[in-house]
Amino acid sequence: MPHMVILYTPQVEPLADMAGLCRVMADALLGSRDEHGQPVFPVGGTRVFAMEARHSAVADGSHGAGFIYFQLRMARGRSAATHAAVGQCLRAAAAAHLQPLLAAQAVGLTLQIDEGHEVFDAKFGNLHALFAPSGPAPTHHA
Amino acid sequence: MPHMVILYTPQVEPLADMAGLCRVMADALLGSRDEHGQPVFPVGGTRVFAMEARHSAVADGSHGAGFIYFQLRMARGRSAATHAAVGQCLRAAAAAHLQPLLAAQAVGLTLQIDEGHEVFDAKFGNLHALFAPSGPAPTHHA
Amino acid sequence: MPHMVILYTPQVEPLADMAGLCRVMADALLGSRDEHGQPVFPVGGTRVFAMEARHSAVADGSHGAGFIYFQLRMARGRSAATHAAVGQCLRAAAAAHLQPLLAAQAVGLTLQIDEGHEVFDAKFGNLHALFAPSGPAPTHHA
Repeated sequence: MPHMVILYTPQVEPLADMAGLCRVMADALLGSRDEHGQPVFPVGGTRVFAMEARHSAVADGSHGAGFIYFQLRMARGRSAATHAAVGQCLRAAAAAHLQPLLAAQAVGLTLQIDEGHEVFDAKFGNLHALFAPSGPAPTHHA
Repeated sequence: MPHMVILYTPQVEPLADMAGLCRVMADALLGSRDEHGQPVFPVGGTRVFAMEARHSAVADGSHGAGFIYFQLRMARGRSAATHAAVGQCLRAAAAAHLQPLLAAQAVGLTLQIDEGHEVFDAKFGNLHALFAPSGPAPTHHA
Repeated sequence: MPHMVILYTPQVEPLADMAGLCRVMADALLGSRDEHGQPVFPVGGTRVFAMEARHSAVADGSHGAGFIYFQLRMARGRSAATHAAVGQCLRAAAAAHLQPLLAAQAVGLTLQIDEGHEVFDAKFGNLHALFAPSGPAPTHHA
């Protein structure tokens, strides 16, 4: 964690820098601070996946409308103030990056944050050694 | 909201009109009525994403079986009767559209509705002005 | 159910047999046993979707790090012991299959199991006749 998935309709691809959007969102996650000024997320656990839909339908089909849906899943147990801070940070970053798209295209943008309620969790890659957790990010929130 | 994601295995693509399926499902959402005969969903928030898996495995690998999984996420707080009405409407629409596929291919079809329990929610696109909400769809359910 | 979705960053594709990974994970699901030695999942409901992200960002962008995220959704109501048994079975299968990738690439691997809390559920494909449920797998857990 944190884990962001961006689903988007095909007409968005040529009109927006979606690779850049992934980096912008990852940087926004890494720059997020909680109400105590501490980083919310560990570097090595941060990932953003942008998935282009092969087919889609938006609203009643008029206006050629597109859609981008952002879903962030984060570990449960953080405060409502932290949720709001992260959400506003992500929203601002996405809105700034997508300004050219908004000027050119009818597009819905929705961003939601969910807390994970997993009943099993395993991390077994090799990023831990490369991105050693910094002090402030508690391991049980990773 | 509402937000539908359709995940499907690759062998489905040449055997079914998946672009048409997205439109059919969006129309079924827009045509859904609650127990008071009112529209359940606002036009401008309705989107359907169909995502083709690059790789997949179904059952024990025999019969060349494929799969289509439909997940609808809708705002929490609606009645069980509304959930059932929407689900049956979506199921009927999908079954009718996919009849040729079912006649030609071993395929699993599962449709589930989840209520969202997001801890942050932002809508910041430009569809609101294009698709002004109609009276019956309450804003807090958008 | 069970329903596994694997999301992965593009640099993983040429370095790992992702089609084989789907089969390995499906076989691990089908081989999972609960604390009474009974199969956990029915054959005909088992499906694995591997979705390649078109774009992605991992950590701070250094090390060319990739990511594979495994999410299993299973019906609610099984025991914590069953969750742990399934999770450890899946983790071991994935780790073995991905050993060449781990030796070649900086990559994060996370596997989580969620219980579904759907408010509507419909199965309307044609796999039931092909994969008749065996005795031990109770229908209400399918």
